[in-house]
Amino acid sequence: MGFLITGTGSYIPNNIKKNKDFVNSSFHNEDGSKIITPNIETINKFESITGIKERRYVSKDLNTSEIAYFASVEAIKASKIDPETIDYIIFAHNFGDVLEGINQYEAMPSLAAKVKSKLKIKNPKCVCYDIIFGCPGWVEGLIQAKAFLESGMAKKCLVIGAETLSRVLDHHDRDAMIFSDGAGATIIEKKEKKGGILSHNSATFTSNGEAEMLFIGNSYNKNIKNRFIKMKGRKVYEFALNNVPSAMKECLDNANIEIGKLKKIFIHQANKKMDDAIIKRFYRLFKHKVPESVMPMNIEFHGNNSVATIPTLYDQVIRKEKKDHYIKEGDIILFASVGAGMNINSIVYQV
Amino acid sequence: MGFLITGTGSYIPNNIKKNKDFVNSSFHNEDGSKIITPNIETINKFESITGIKERRYVSKDLNTSEIAYFASVEAIKASKIDPETIDYIIFAHNFGDVLEGINQYEAMPSLAAKVKSKLKIKNPKCVCYDIIFGCPGWVEGLIQAKAFLESGMAKKCLVIGAETLSRVLDHHDRDAMIFSDGAGATIIEKKEKKGGILSHNSATFTSNGEAEMLFIGNSYNKNIKNRFIKMKGRKVYEFALNNVPSAMKECLDNANIEIGKLKKIFIHQANKKMDDAIIKRFYRLFKHKVPESVMPMNIEFHGNNSVATIPTLYDQVIRKEKKDHYIKEGDIILFASVGAGMNINSIVYQV
Repeated sequence: MGFLITGTGSYIPNNIKKNKDFVNSSFHNEDGSKIITPNIETINKFESITGIKERRYVSKDLNTSEIAYFASVEAIKASKIDPETIDYIIFAHNFGDVLEGINQYEAMPSLAAKVKSKLKIKNPKCVCYDIIFGCPGWVEGLIQAKAFLESGMAKKCLVIGAETLSRVLDHHDRDAMIFSDGAGATIIEKKEKKGGILSHNSATFTSNGEAEMLFIGNSYNKNIKNRFIKMKGRKVYEFALNNVPSAMKECLDNANIEIGKLKKIFIHQANKKMDDAIIKRFYRLFKHKVPESVMPMNIEFHGNNSVATIPTLYDQVIRKEKKDHYIKEGDIILFASVGAGMNINSIVYQV
Repeated sequence: MGFLITGTGSYIPNNIKKNKDFVNSSFHNEDGSKIITPNIETINKFESITGIKERRYVSKDLNTSEIAYFASVEAIKASKIDPETIDYIIFAHNFGDVLEGINQYEAMPSLAAKVKSKLKIKNPKCVCYDIIFGCPGWVEGLIQAKAFLESGMAKKCLVIGAETLSRVLDHHDRDAMIFSDGAGATIIEKKEKKGGILSHNSATFTSNGEAEMLFIGNSYNKNIKNRFIKMKGRKVYEFALNNVPSAMKECLDNANIEIGKLKKIFIHQANKKMDDAIIKRFYRLFKHKVPESVMPMNIEFHGNNSVATIPTLYDQVIRKEKKDHYIKEGDIILFASVGAGMNINSIVYQV
């Protein structure tokens, strides 16, 4: 018996915003003072660290729940299940729906219920809820789905990660260049088959100021009253380096899998330099060389769209859209994420 | 083996707002036109239907996560557990923290992580997440906790329901008189003991426009740009009457409990008239007379504080603060809720 992903889907927004499109931005420091470094220098440094060349934003008429619906349609189609047999719709986000031009985060009703409504699922026993767990929300949603499958409360779950961070950006903060929009969706089922989720772990760190590393805060332009996504980048980087590799190792050890058997690592697309450093440190824990092509990335063209990074990337690999990154039945892979909370989680999964 | 509530706590805000305090409010219709009925008539009719005489709002310096912390401290104290042994903090809300004067809903980091930080829990394996499930969020949190306890992912969970609806009210909508603030918290544990959760059910209805019955919408005063909690009261009433009694019956039947054995029903404090009608119809399904004092209520003095109504009411009964409402070990009780989604859930529980 296994807990298996039987279908994936994603929605990639249409509007491409390139790094050079920030060249006329008015960036400020945290204290409100204007940044005097020319934007082109800021942008070049940003690109060399994060690996981000462009990112994608939704068009004005779309919302988080709508792009999640598009991704869900694809996932259901790929899984070949009857949508009426879905027991749970678990929707990971952090800001709900944000209407264009209105800086408010709306999640009543839950975005999961909105997706169900759009999918025209009639069965009232398809239970819909949203989970807030920072960027690792989609991975956590899978773990919660596993608990429902394991305890007999469900047989099939739709797990979604979607966010429109373009609507919650402080355009006067250089970190605005990091964030983007996207949606990924997955069907997970309990099957009479080997493989699937082999092990998982989750953690929330709060005892060393971690709850203030990613937060909602004021604009760096003191004339703006709305509040936006904010990040203490240096601290997040150090926190991730210090804690993610050991969490990934713990998860692999719990699954009793040798490091050499690990085929791919799907890590939250936060920052290329950070992800490279995490993988390096992870392999160092096993005294093992980092294998070539172990880590598919899409941050270069997608930016960091929070909960959507991993399901989108996994969908691209499943659909053979990522050169050098193919997986086949039986392969062992690892999902790993880190984000606001601060939360860390990982799953060892056999395809 | 049972899944038992071993501690409860609640926080009752200090600021009392009486019905007569709305006498000078400027109420509008949905179309923006001013309501011409004198407010005193509106208020009297409101009181006779909802049973609400007064409600409580948090003071300006407090937030949802802070009052949740106060309730959690009480629940932990009552359960006598070491907070470092808590495996999950599950926080049900719908609007996150809303700063006084800023109509934005903030949940980054999750409110559960904020509570953990305030509780000074060090153990990173205490996993914190927020759930959005409308008013039935706390009951759903208990059901999710049960899944974690059952699947071996947890032994002890802290489940919180807290909301500060006073911060998301459209003061030009008469429904503003319904909503209020509050926090309830509960420790649930897997114990080598009979009783606890005997059965549960959940449902999400979306196929007949239910997703638009409770929502975020524009002010009835067309000059105001912010968006607020909105309710199609008549439709919610009819929906609840048509669906909640049968859901409660299904849950009791699943637990194989005779209706005569049911000692108390803790129902979401939405509206006294609606709750009375639900209970009446519920007993009619069993051809049974509604027993006296079967339904403790606190809406008269608390209003409807969403996810907080049931855990607060249960805490008051456990602490023997409700005349005519006492429960003892072995008693069978029912939790039942309905709200935005539209969601319905219930739990049959043996004390």
